Formats: sequence, structure tokens, C-alpha cells
Amino acid sequence: MKPKILLFDLFGTLVDVGGVADECERVFPGHGEQLSRVWRDKQLKYTWLRTLMGRYENFERITQHALVAACNDLRLHPDDALKEDLPAAFERLKPFPEVPTALASLASDGFHLGVLSNGTRQQASAVLAQSAFGVPILIFSADDVRLYKPAPGVYAFGVQQVQAEVGEVLFVSANAWDVAGARAFGLSCAWLDRARGSFEELDVTPTIVAHDLDDLVHELRQREA
Amino acid sequence: MKPKILLFDLFGTLVDVGGVADECERVFPGHGEQLSRVWRDKQLKYTWLRTLMGRYENFERITQHALVAACNDLRLHPDDALKEDLPAAFERLKPFPEVPTALASLASDGFHLGVLSNGTRQQASAVLAQSAFGVPILIFSADDVRLYKPAPGVYAFGVQQVQAEVGEVLFVSANAWDVAGARAFGLSCAWLDRARGSFEELDVTPTIVAHDLDDLVHELRQREA
Repeated sequence: MKPKILLFDLFGTLVDVGGVADECERVFPGHGEQLSRVWRDKQLKYTWLRTLMGRYENFERITQHALVAACNDLRLHPDDALKEDLPAAFERLKPFPEVPTALASLASDGFHLGVLSNGTRQQASAVLAQSAFGVPILIFSADDVRLYKPAPGVYAFGVQQVQAEVGEVLFVSANAWDVAGARAFGLSCAWLDRARGSFEELDVTPTIVAHDLDDLVHELRQREA
Repeated sequence: MKPKILLFDLFGTLVDVGGVADECERVFPGHGEQLSRVWRDKQLKYTWLRTLMGRYENFERITQHALVAACNDLRLHPDDALKEDLPAAFERLKPFPEVPTALASLASDGFHLGVLSNGTRQQASAVLAQSAFGVPILIFSADDVRLYKPAPGVYAFGVQQVQAEVGEVLFVSANAWDVAGARAFGLSCAWLDRARGSFEELDVTPTIVAHDLDDLVHELRQREA
């Protein structure tokens, strides 16, 4: 079945979380890259652990907690203002270079576009607002089901919200574990292999592998032709 | 309430997963430390992701998958025999130095001892057999409930198996996320802060913080006195 709706992951897929390193570097010179990496790892880890523990907390708070934990691990000492302000770095992330034109192409090819993010609606809206993609993109947040990906309930929520059949949706993420979760739920998935890496060993495979969003536009047009 | 039963995590708590690095180093000289770290991270990540995805696979298989994925990430190329053999490194791990005498002290102080591990019964039995602690230790495996820590069901299973009240059990782990999960479930927990680090930012705190098992023996005796 040809997909009618493309549901995108946001962080790392449409926008480059690498931008967090630059903000960290300004605050902790010489530690930006490492801090941003440990912070992002903690952020994801906390989404998984809290979902498993049945102790949901929204992504804004998790991002703050993960920053504190990352700084603890690296023996860095952010003051209270920084703990409050630095997490907004995730709302200031820039799109990957090809994303604006590729999204416009997908919209003109007739696809409906949506974002299904672990981030809160506020975070996702802020990111999309400043990216100013110029095409309509629906926003769905894991916050509405108080679970994080890859719990099946998050993907089920996305499909339900777009009022589509599972087969009409293509989920797109650069995060292999996210693609694995969506595949396990039953969605067709495109993995954006931005880092030219290997897929996770989780007994599922992506439906489509593309290097970036331009590559996916090309791939979908070929399938259509 | 005074605990009657001590339930221990195994990997990283009673036995030192650092031993995996030595075996990796023999096979991939110059990469042992890094490979073992990436491998262990993947191993844990896969337990969490698979539990969230509802795609349980036992810890022996997960350990194999995680090795393949870690080697992929590091561009190392294990042959098939190695992929089969190296995971048994987790069954050859040695206890931390203080553990044998500390367990003997706890047994002589009247505590019943058990292990509640993500590992299969076969893996946990192999580890305990070669450690030869000389005190009776019950073995409970997450494999029996097909969920991994920190899912509450794993801790509930442990408590049920020892036929005790929640308040009669003290759970002991050096893995902060594991302590957090057991605390969220409702168990009293001792965190063995072996690395002198900070606890995870998950809105729960350990009941007891001890540096190692000797320190915990001392702490429990003080509380009794």
C-alpha cells in the first residue's frame, strides 16, 4: 500500500541534536561535545527507564534531569540558572540542511506530514516554529499518552491521531531504536541512516533505508513510478 | 522493619563486569576496554528496548546481539566462532574482592541470600558456581517473567519467589538504574556506590548507600545494634 501520511521523528531526524554541543561548549569550554553526548544518552535512557518503571515525567523535565546527571558524571557544576536555561537548547535546534526543501517536495508529492515526538507539544512546536518549514506539519507528542518510544502505545497514538490505517502511514526516523519500535508495532518505516552506521540488532529491519530526507524523496518517487 | 532477605543484583554488583574487557582485549588488542564498554551499554539498552517493545529475548541471546552491534559500531569483525564464544565471558566473571567474605558475614548474621538477575538461570548459576561463595544463595532470573529490570514485574517476581513481604526484603545493586527501579516498585534498597559516583536523577533515592559489600555488612550491623 502506498503511504499517504509520513510521520517523522523530530530530534536527530528533522533537526540536528549536534547543535546542543555548541551551546554546551559556550558554557563549558572544552567539554561541549562530551557533555552533549552524555546528556543525550541520559535523556534517552531516562525516557526508557521511566516508561519501564511506570514513572512518567515529561520530556522537558527529563531533559533537565539528564543535564544534571550528565554534569554530575563529568564533574561539571552548572548553576541553577544554567540548569533552567540550557535545556532550551533542544528547542533551538536547526534542521539538517536538506530537510526544508525535502519536506516541501514531499508535501507537493501529496503526502500529509506529521511529527511524532518524545518532546512535549511545546518543545516540538518551538522547534518547528523556528525552522519555518513552510508546509503544514501536524504535531503529536508522546506526552499525550505519558509513555515514551519505543512503547507500542506511542506509535498507536500517532496512527490513531492521523485517523489512518497502519498501512497508510510511513514512519521516518534516524534513530534505529525508534525505527525498531515502530516496526515492532507494525508500521512501515524508513530509517535515515545519517551516520552511515549499522542498524540495531533487535530482530526487525527497516522497510526503507535512506541516507537522508532527499534520498527518501527520491526513493518514494521511484516506488511511485 | 529489619530485612530478613537480601536480594542481590549479579552483574556489576557481586561480580565485576570489568573482566569482560580483558577477554575482549585478548581478541581485539587495543580495543578491549572500548569494546567491552560499548557491548555492555548495548546489552542494557537492548534489555530496556525489548521490554518496552514487548519483544522479549533471553539475556544470552541479547548478549550475543549486543556484541554484534558493538562490533559493528566499532568496525570490528568477529568471526562466527567468536560471536558464539565471547558472550560466555559474562559467565566467567570474577567476584569483587570483598564479596566472598562479606556474603559469608551476611549469612552468619542470619540473612537469607538470593540473586535476582537479568541473566538466565544458566548464566547466573555458572557465575555463582565458579565463584564458589560457600553460602547458600537462591537464584531468580528475569527470564522466568520475560521482562527486564527496571520493569516492576521483575522485582515483584523476586519478592514472590522468596515468599516474603516487601518490607522483609532489601534489594542490593551497584547499578543505580536498578536501585531506582526496585525503589519505584516499593522495595528498600542498598546502592553499592562502587564507582563513587552520583545516583541517577529519577526522583527516587536509595534507602542505604554503601561503597561496597563490606560497607553494607557494617551498616546493617550498626542498624541492628
